[in-house]
Amino acid sequence: MTEKAPTKAELSERLEQVEAERDEYLDHLKRLAADFENYRKRAVRDQESLVARAHERLVKELLPVLDDLERALEAAEQHEEARLEEGVRLVHRELRDALTKEGLVEIDSDGQFDPHVHEALLSQPSTEGDGAILEVIQKGYRLGDRVLRPARVVVSQGAPEP
Amino acid sequence: MTEKAPTKAELSERLEQVEAERDEYLDHLKRLAADFENYRKRAVRDQESLVARAHERLVKELLPVLDDLERALEAAEQHEEARLEEGVRLVHRELRDALTKEGLVEIDSDGQFDPHVHEALLSQPSTEGDGAILEVIQKGYRLGDRVLRPARVVVSQGAPEP
Repeated sequence: MTEKAPTKAELSERLEQVEAERDEYLDHLKRLAADFENYRKRAVRDQESLVARAHERLVKELLPVLDDLERALEAAEQHEEARLEEGVRLVHRELRDALTKEGLVEIDSDGQFDPHVHEALLSQPSTEGDGAILEVIQKGYRLGDRVLRPARVVVSQGAPEP
Repeated sequence: MTEKAPTKAELSERLEQVEAERDEYLDHLKRLAADFENYRKRAVRDQESLVARAHERLVKELLPVLDDLERALEAAEQHEEARLEEGVRLVHRELRDALTKEGLVEIDSDGQFDPHVHEALLSQPSTEGDGAILEVIQKGYRLGDRVLRPARVVVSQGAPEP
C-alpha cells in the first residue's frame, strides 16, 4: 500500500502548522533561557547573603563572651581575684554554650582508642588493656558528623613485659 | 508586483526545512530544561555545604580559645593567680583576633553621638558640647557594613543651666 501524495493545499496547511509549532518552541526556549539566567543570578546573591547571615548570627552570639572577658580583665587589673575567677567561669560557660548551639560536641575519650576520632600522641605499657585511653592531652570535637579535631590521647600498650 | 505562488516542490522543501528547525528547537529546549533542573539541584546542595563549611571554619578557629579558657580555669582551681590572669589575657586576644578576622570592627565612640551607630542610654549636662559622648557603657560592633550592636553611651546635653 502506498501513501497518497499530499495535495498542494494539504502541504500549505501542514507548513503553517509546523511553523506555528516551531515559533512556539522558540518562544518557550527564549523564556526558559531568561528564567535560567535570572535563577542563576539570584542563586549567587542568595548564597552570599546566606553565608553572611549565618556568620552574623554566630559572631553576634559571641559578643557577650567578649564583653564578659573584658570585664574579667578589668577585675584582674584591680586585683579582684574572686571576681576574675567568677568571670572566667562565666565566659567559659557562655562560649561552650554558644558553640554547643552551633552543633559542637566533645569527642568521648573514655574507653578504647578509635582512630576515627582519636590521635595517639604516645603509647605506653599499663595495667589497662591494650588500646585503652590512659590520658587526654587535648580534647577533640565533632561538628555534626564531621570530626573538627581528633582528641589527642595517650594509649595503653597493655601489660608491661614481666 | 505580486509574489509568485510557490510550486508544490518548493512547498515540500520549505516544510522539510521548517520541520528541521522545529525539531532542533525542541531538542535544545529539552536540553536546557535538563540543565536548569540540574543546576537547581546543585545550587541547593552547594548552599547547604557552603553554610556548613563557613560555620565549620569559624567554630574551628574558636577551639583554641576554648582550650585556653579551660587551662585558665585549671589555674584558678590551683589558685595560680598570675597564670589565671595571663590566661585570660591570652583568651581575650585570641577571641578578639578570631572575630576581627571574621570582619568584626569596634564602633568608634570618641567624639559626637551618631544615631546610626550609637544608642543613648542617658544624657546629662556637661562642660562638653551638646551631643558629645561622655562615656561608653557597652562597646558597639560592626560586621562589614552592618551594625551588629550599637554602642551604648552617655551623651552630653551641653552646659548646665547657669
